[in-house]
Amino acid sequence: MALDRRSFLQISAAALGAAALPFTAAAKAPLLGSQAPAYYRFMIGSFEVTALNDGALEIDLSLYDKADPAQAQALLRASHRPPKIPTAVNAYAVNTGNALILVDTGTASAMGPGLGKLPRALAAASLDPANVDIVFLTHMHPDHANGLIDAAGNAAFPNAELVVADQEYAFWHDDAAMNQAPGDFKPFFLGARNAVKPYASRTRQIRGGEVAPGLTAVPAHGHTPGHSMLRVSSGHAGLLIWGDLVHTAALQFARPEWAFAFDADPAQAIATRRAVLDQAASDRVMVAGMHLDFPGIGHVSRAQSGYEYHPAFWSPTL
Amino acid sequence: MALDRRSFLQISAAALGAAALPFTAAAKAPLLGSQAPAYYRFMIGSFEVTALNDGALEIDLSLYDKADPAQAQALLRASHRPPKIPTAVNAYAVNTGNALILVDTGTASAMGPGLGKLPRALAAASLDPANVDIVFLTHMHPDHANGLIDAAGNAAFPNAELVVADQEYAFWHDDAAMNQAPGDFKPFFLGARNAVKPYASRTRQIRGGEVAPGLTAVPAHGHTPGHSMLRVSSGHAGLLIWGDLVHTAALQFARPEWAFAFDADPAQAIATRRAVLDQAASDRVMVAGMHLDFPGIGHVSRAQSGYEYHPAFWSPTL
Repeated sequence: MALDRRSFLQISAAALGAAALPFTAAAKAPLLGSQAPAYYRFMIGSFEVTALNDGALEIDLSLYDKADPAQAQALLRASHRPPKIPTAVNAYAVNTGNALILVDTGTASAMGPGLGKLPRALAAASLDPANVDIVFLTHMHPDHANGLIDAAGNAAFPNAELVVADQEYAFWHDDAAMNQAPGDFKPFFLGARNAVKPYASRTRQIRGGEVAPGLTAVPAHGHTPGHSMLRVSSGHAGLLIWGDLVHTAALQFARPEWAFAFDADPAQAIATRRAVLDQAASDRVMVAGMHLDFPGIGHVSRAQSGYEYHPAFWSPTL
Repeated sequence: MALDRRSFLQISAAALGAAALPFTAAAKAPLLGSQAPAYYRFMIGSFEVTALNDGALEIDLSLYDKADPAQAQALLRASHRPPKIPTAVNAYAVNTGNALILVDTGTASAMGPGLGKLPRALAAASLDPANVDIVFLTHMHPDHANGLIDAAGNAAFPNAELVVADQEYAFWHDDAAMNQAPGDFKPFFLGARNAVKPYASRTRQIRGGEVAPGLTAVPAHGHTPGHSMLRVSSGHAGLLIWGDLVHTAALQFARPEWAFAFDADPAQAIATRRAVLDQAASDRVMVAGMHLDFPGIGHVSRAQSGYEYHPAFWSPTL
């Protein structure tokens, strides 16, 4: 075995083997330029869950303004992520057999052409928006709520009940809060209001508790005033769809105290993240995250510094 | 924020929200029971690479017979993998624009109905087996070579040149080696011979070096006598398709010295694994592994114990 740096990197070495046959290749195959459909399916007990990707955005490292820059850059470098951190926007569909629940809805047109692909992912996954019985929102930021409406402002899920935390719904409809918000944030209020408006007559505001049998909203406030997770339970199996508990896995598992610039209440967001990560590690529950690498499912364990994330096995069968 | 163990685990709490509307769900959507197509596309410079999954097998922890059982179980438990370790079987297609090269071919019928799905993955990825110009084999174990032939024993890639290391080809055709092998291993010899037989008139045996422009075979012996990696280089971009350098990420990044029962020369396999992991960490090159979780691409970094694996971002675009 002669495996040294030279052989490892050697690009242009001539073939050394037995006589090459005069073999004529077929016509060139075209490059295809298309990605695989953006869904992934798995079972939680008897429930069928489909992870769906709306696209990707870049989170600039500067949005972790409380992070030590050198430490943050070292963590990104170790995990081979650039400072403009590629970040998934995921949603999850849960079919309990009795109801089809969609958790978050992607961006629609709110965040540019690199996103808004949830309708395509739903179609590829053979999930008809008209069959969605409930849309549960973890919170009402545009990358979670704006997919509620189509380009004309109509309900993208014509038969769905909308379920959202009452504190979340109230916050984005609070004119005083909107008027106090920095100018950059005002469109978030108007966008959130527009997104939920077509559902006004079929909106259920809750403060935790049952969304549907087997699905329970769990308050996890901080990122927004009503940010909530969805606990999925079927038999002994469980999944915690944790919304925006973590925005950048490469940073916030190791350093849960590094808040994200868009957190409404950073101290509360940090306390929530610590509590949930610790509980998830203790309970060994599978988690799903809207900004974890697609399909965004895995497990949490404790590490020497903070926590570690272990993506789930990509299984060819459900 | 009241996020305690109770609220986190609470499953059956009644909804506490505003009055639920008398909302009638649509007809139940059926469970679909089907997985997403098993391919994933990405660019390496101007080359288009498609990761393809042939299915999954289970590696029993007992096949790491040199591993300390308690340590091995602890590593598996931390990464949430059971002792019958779910393990991907991947292959990779590289379209350089001038030639379409398939690296390994999956199992076909050699390893049961949970595998042999490469033809389906190729079709889903719009890759026509008749357009494959070269099949490069990392080695001739059945989960890499048996997909060369269809159920009738004919060439599955009718227009492809077969490229394989001369030591590898010679080993599996060596009657003395076959006769010395344990009884369980004899079918491996016969299977390898059957798989390559239809390609006899268009086989190029090499000892490292160029497979096609931009693609270089790099010896990485130990797992088998001629086990080889394929170095993909386009412009400044690179990818190291490392075959079976690692069989279980949860174990062998942390403990490269834990050989796998099917290694032909365990000491050489360990030395190769250490050398390649160390070089991959230094060079920060993207790697692709036939038994890393699909799509099996990522990076290697040094860790307090051994190395760490960082799966690549799943990008919705190429």
